Amino acid sequence: MPLPVPVLAEGVDPAWLPPAAFEPLGTRRTLIRGSGPMVETVHGEVADAVARFGGRVVRDPEPGDGMSYDLVLELTGASGDEGFACGRQDGTTTVTASGRRGLLYGLFHVVRLGEDAFRGEWAREVHQPAAALRMVDHWDNVAVHPVMGQVERGYSGGSLFWADGRARGELERVRAYGRLLAACGINAVAVNNVNVHRTEARLLTDRIGEVAALADALRPYGIRTHLSVTFTAPIVLAGLETADPLDARVREWWARATADVYAAIPDFGGYVVKADSEGQPGPFTYGRSHADGANMLAAALAPHGGTVHWRAFVYNHRQDWRDRTTDRARAAYDHFVPLDGKFADNAVLQVKHGPMDFQVREPVSPVLGAMPRTRLALELQATQEYTGQQRHVCWLGPMWSEVLRFRPEAESSVGESAARGGGLVAVSNVGDDPFWTGHPLAQANLYTFGRLAWQPGADPGRLLDEWIGLTFPGASRRLAAGLHAVLDGSWQTYEKYTAPLGVGWMVQPGHHYGPSVDGYEYSPWGTYHFADRDGIGVDRSAATGTGYAAQYAKPWSEVYESPDTCPDELLLFFHHMSYGHMLHNGKTVIQHIYDTHFKGVTEVEEARETWASLADLVDPARHARVAERYEEQLRSAREWRDQVNSYFFRKSGVADAHGRRIY
Amino acid sequence: MPLPVPVLAEGVDPAWLPPAAFEPLGTRRTLIRGSGPMVETVHGEVADAVARFGGRVVRDPEPGDGMSYDLVLELTGASGDEGFACGRQDGTTTVTASGRRGLLYGLFHVVRLGEDAFRGEWAREVHQPAAALRMVDHWDNVAVHPVMGQVERGYSGGSLFWADGRARGELERVRAYGRLLAACGINAVAVNNVNVHRTEARLLTDRIGEVAALADALRPYGIRTHLSVTFTAPIVLAGLETADPLDARVREWWARATADVYAAIPDFGGYVVKADSEGQPGPFTYGRSHADGANMLAAALAPHGGTVHWRAFVYNHRQDWRDRTTDRARAAYDHFVPLDGKFADNAVLQVKHGPMDFQVREPVSPVLGAMPRTRLALELQATQEYTGQQRHVCWLGPMWSEVLRFRPEAESSVGESAARGGGLVAVSNVGDDPFWTGHPLAQANLYTFGRLAWQPGADPGRLLDEWIGLTFPGASRRLAAGLHAVLDGSWQTYEKYTAPLGVGWMVQPGHHYGPSVDGYEYSPWGTYHFADRDGIGVDRSAATGTGYAAQYAKPWSEVYESPDTCPDELLLFFHHMSYGHMLHNGKTVIQHIYDTHFKGVTEVEEARETWASLADLVDPARHARVAERYEEQLRSAREWRDQVNSYFFRKSGVADAHGRRIY
Repeated sequence: MPLPVPVLAEGVDPAWLPPAAFEPLGTRRTLIRGSGPMVETVHGEVADAVARFGGRVVRDPEPGDGMSYDLVLELTGASGDEGFACGRQDGTTTVTASGRRGLLYGLFHVVRLGEDAFRGEWAREVHQPAAALRMVDHWDNVAVHPVMGQVERGYSGGSLFWADGRARGELERVRAYGRLLAACGINAVAVNNVNVHRTEARLLTDRIGEVAALADALRPYGIRTHLSVTFTAPIVLAGLETADPLDARVREWWARATADVYAAIPDFGGYVVKADSEGQPGPFTYGRSHADGANMLAAALAPHGGTVHWRAFVYNHRQDWRDRTTDRARAAYDHFVPLDGKFADNAVLQVKHGPMDFQVREPVSPVLGAMPRTRLALELQATQEYTGQQRHVCWLGPMWSEVLRFRPEAESSVGESAARGGGLVAVSNVGDDPFWTGHPLAQANLYTFGRLAWQPGADPGRLLDEWIGLTFPGASRRLAAGLHAVLDGSWQTYEKYTAPLGVGWMVQPGHHYGPSVDGYEYSPWGTYHFADRDGIGVDRSAATGTGYAAQYAKPWSEVYESPDTCPDELLLFFHHMSYGHMLHNGKTVIQHIYDTHFKGVTEVEEARETWASLADLVDPARHARVAERYEEQLRSAREWRDQVNSYFFRKSGVADAHGRRIY
Repeated sequence: MPLPVPVLAEGVDPAWLPPAAFEPLGTRRTLIRGSGPMVETVHGEVADAVARFGGRVVRDPEPGDGMSYDLVLELTGASGDEGFACGRQDGTTTVTASGRRGLLYGLFHVVRLGEDAFRGEWAREVHQPAAALRMVDHWDNVAVHPVMGQVERGYSGGSLFWADGRARGELERVRAYGRLLAACGINAVAVNNVNVHRTEARLLTDRIGEVAALADALRPYGIRTHLSVTFTAPIVLAGLETADPLDARVREWWARATADVYAAIPDFGGYVVKADSEGQPGPFTYGRSHADGANMLAAALAPHGGTVHWRAFVYNHRQDWRDRTTDRARAAYDHFVPLDGKFADNAVLQVKHGPMDFQVREPVSPVLGAMPRTRLALELQATQEYTGQQRHVCWLGPMWSEVLRFRPEAESSVGESAARGGGLVAVSNVGDDPFWTGHPLAQANLYTFGRLAWQPGADPGRLLDEWIGLTFPGASRRLAAGLHAVLDGSWQTYEKYTAPLGVGWMVQPGHHYGPSVDGYEYSPWGTYHFADRDGIGVDRSAATGTGYAAQYAKPWSEVYESPDTCPDELLLFFHHMSYGHMLHNGKTVIQHIYDTHFKGVTEVEEARETWASLADLVDPARHARVAERYEEQLRSAREWRDQVNSYFFRKSGVADAHGRRIY
């Protein structure tokens, strides 16, 4: 029986799967061959499309029925392979897959192609995801956290999964979410926050049924479910007096608990763990290494085919700002590189893309090039914690693409290594908001992430246009160009009006929205800029600084070591420079700060105008939501401009070369 | 029947009324004459003391019984007069009062005198409170506020009155609180926060019974109960569509609601109102003046003898930091002085002591000298919102005394005017903490406030010793001297290590604990210091600044107008000065900042040592609580020192003349 496509509640946006995106498919005659649950999902999709647009779908016809088909979708096996082949000959487009998910991805490939899927002839192309794991991590709490709320760093309303301590039970919406994820290539979801509080801890044991219900809803779209667990689960859930990963009772408890999880969810993906980080417990408590900790969980998961994702976000968050020798940027490398080769095969070390924490500009984490004998996953952040919190347009595709194409050493890019290793992970930007992501244009971030996880070398601009094409089917050239224009440069725009030259962290403490130049300057978080009346920046050179630059292989260790070769956009991350220092771009540091901040605001004003000019082409609710957020973005960008410029003018005493207003 | 004294639960500190403080009285023979409920209170006090220490108490004996008495307490009337006379002749100390409360205050006077009350002979002295109203305002919420908690700006645990949306019903503790208040001369309590939220609004109407229960508990100690109300009560409680103070239905509603309040609480004190302030509604909504608003409530209260306390804390809390012409310090004067003479007789304008908000150093509010035809109450803050939050020792007696003795014009001091006018008010520092005030030594603030309200010209050092004598009866010379030493200079110590020279506001936004030099610098709250690389401070002169200095009468307008005559400790409040400016104390501004910050920390270290040296003389629980808080105070003071010094060193580039460590 074909699986019906999920029905969206009134007012919920279809995002990049509006019915009209299925029109080219829906007007055609499609043949589906094969069997198994995923074929029913594919059948349901096609059946829904043809019912809407007048085409036809046939399932496994008798040989010699004499029919001809525009599209043949064929599953030839039942492997775990996710690839598919697609070609067109003699008026028929054919998608073949040997694995369950491959057929689904092939279908969505056809949807993406639109009318092009049914034009001309083309040779059979093989499509294969670069990374086996393409995951979104939800920082959703089950119980509302007094400070962080229902979703930690969530800017899209409540959680799709949980509300006020309970499972929401709105599984049709969860199914629709799984469908959106599948359509951009994502195949794994972690359903709860990496900060595992008391209520969430119990999802592992007596509340596993609630996780299983989510897994059941997501499975038809090829998505495996993962769970964040607390390292102290044996203590808080079972009353053991230790969580020592080398203690036999602890290991036995995890083995049993994990077997119970798999009894409830046979295709369970595995655990996500934040240990010894920002107050979360971990193996350090017992004098054990992070390899000990991760491998203990890996051993529990291995018999069932599961994986542990062990986060590398470990640093001293009780640092003394007076101490300039401790460098948070060094921490992940210092903690984990000595453990290279010690992690089990099904233990993945999950590494944030930069050494700090999702700032708008950071160098690529040196860990990503320094652990050849460890499966590394790359962690990106779709939720815009530091990049405008979905009140600002900030399309992160270009930033992620830069990271993925960065080559820590000659052999592989970050994207290639992560794809071969532990996969690509993004912190979700989705909630129960009608537009899914708060800001309607922030949908592009989730979509782009999924597609980059499939193909890390893809041109992000092409993926953006893909998203535009799906989300606004039949968009006029003016609309498509306008959407591209407001999104394409939005990351660089955001960078311009916020913290300059890679220095980061000039945000309001705690909630991280809006400027506070000194907000983290005297804090324990290890996030300083050291601005004084003469200059600004952190000396992370090996020669005179913290030595962080030496954590890179050549050529990067040399490039970053000297201000002469360090790229402008990272200069203050690696060096403390005088305001009068001349950048490669021909401006002084201080004049660059002024210019970019004025420019960034101008660019927001222009984007707002562009958006306003599209009012006749976008449905009113979506247009109004975006227009309203542009007002806030502009207000906020002006606040950033004026606070940052005033701060540095007051400190440096250097007047703007163009005499613009600084307060 | 004598009223039994309240029984304290196990572990609750008796504060300044420990049983031993009653020993001199309790060993004597006392005669009580008079009738009425307050005489029963007095009788209960004496009966408890003599039961404990072996004396005797007699009530209204037959003439000629032949007994002689050490003490005679006599009520001769039933007026509202609060004074009493006290003298000693022929071995008998006599207290006479013509009013109910006078006898009670006379009794506590005898307790304060201790053995001295029964030594020698002395002429009859008349004691009379300077102010008719001596009030504490509780910022206690009924329902826990998501940000502010159960008690707004409370640092002493929960509320004595409310918990989780309900009345606590622990009336014995409330009675004990009333007794402590009476013993220092306080005669009025406002039982809920001036920010009146939805739950609290209903105390006025259907929940008045809960207020009446508190009033019943407090009444035997001479305390009238007041209630904070919301200006929109007619809308939120009765569904009227307006709260316009000139609307007949609104006026009628208030008249009726107020009559109902008095039916429940015949001696109800009146209303406290925060209107058009920090988001609270008020008469501005209807284009009416604050006199219109206050007088409408005064009219409702007048038939019953009640008073409205209308707060003058009105300013623009959505200011643009870029705008240097708007000056929050001016706001209360600008709003209220034009209304002088327009307020009803039973309307009191309640004015904070400084123009900003309870900073450790502010000039006296110019409103206090500029409204001769208005009854003004002076509002002080016993809860240490900006002065260490009861984790730091900061005895505010000297600061309050400075304010009270300040003479806005030649005729009267602030204390004399407020006493004649609307009275003295302190925001309470009390909660359900076993020591009442969180920090055991913070009890001295509440005690000192009550005594200064009775006698605004009193020497605060003498009141401090009075508190020490009562709280530590029979203290050795070493203990008394040690307590005096750690408290007496603590306000100046706190000033030294926090914001310098009157500039204020260098605190962490929101919770207001700990340093953040730029924390409020780019905020909408109107609280700026304008530090740049050359200097710091706010030009509030008439000649070149905001004109605030001209809100004072001569000589103060002239004194504050010029940096040459402005007192050092207020220099940066009134003037923007270069770091090299030479103070009257012979130091530059920058060197003064460095010196005071190093000195302040040294003083905390010394106080901590002094406290440690008293370990053998103080009960262990109290000693430990204070010792533990000294650790935090010292940590915090060092943080203040280092952040403030580093901030100004980085900005000014001027090295410390003594080469001390600045980061």
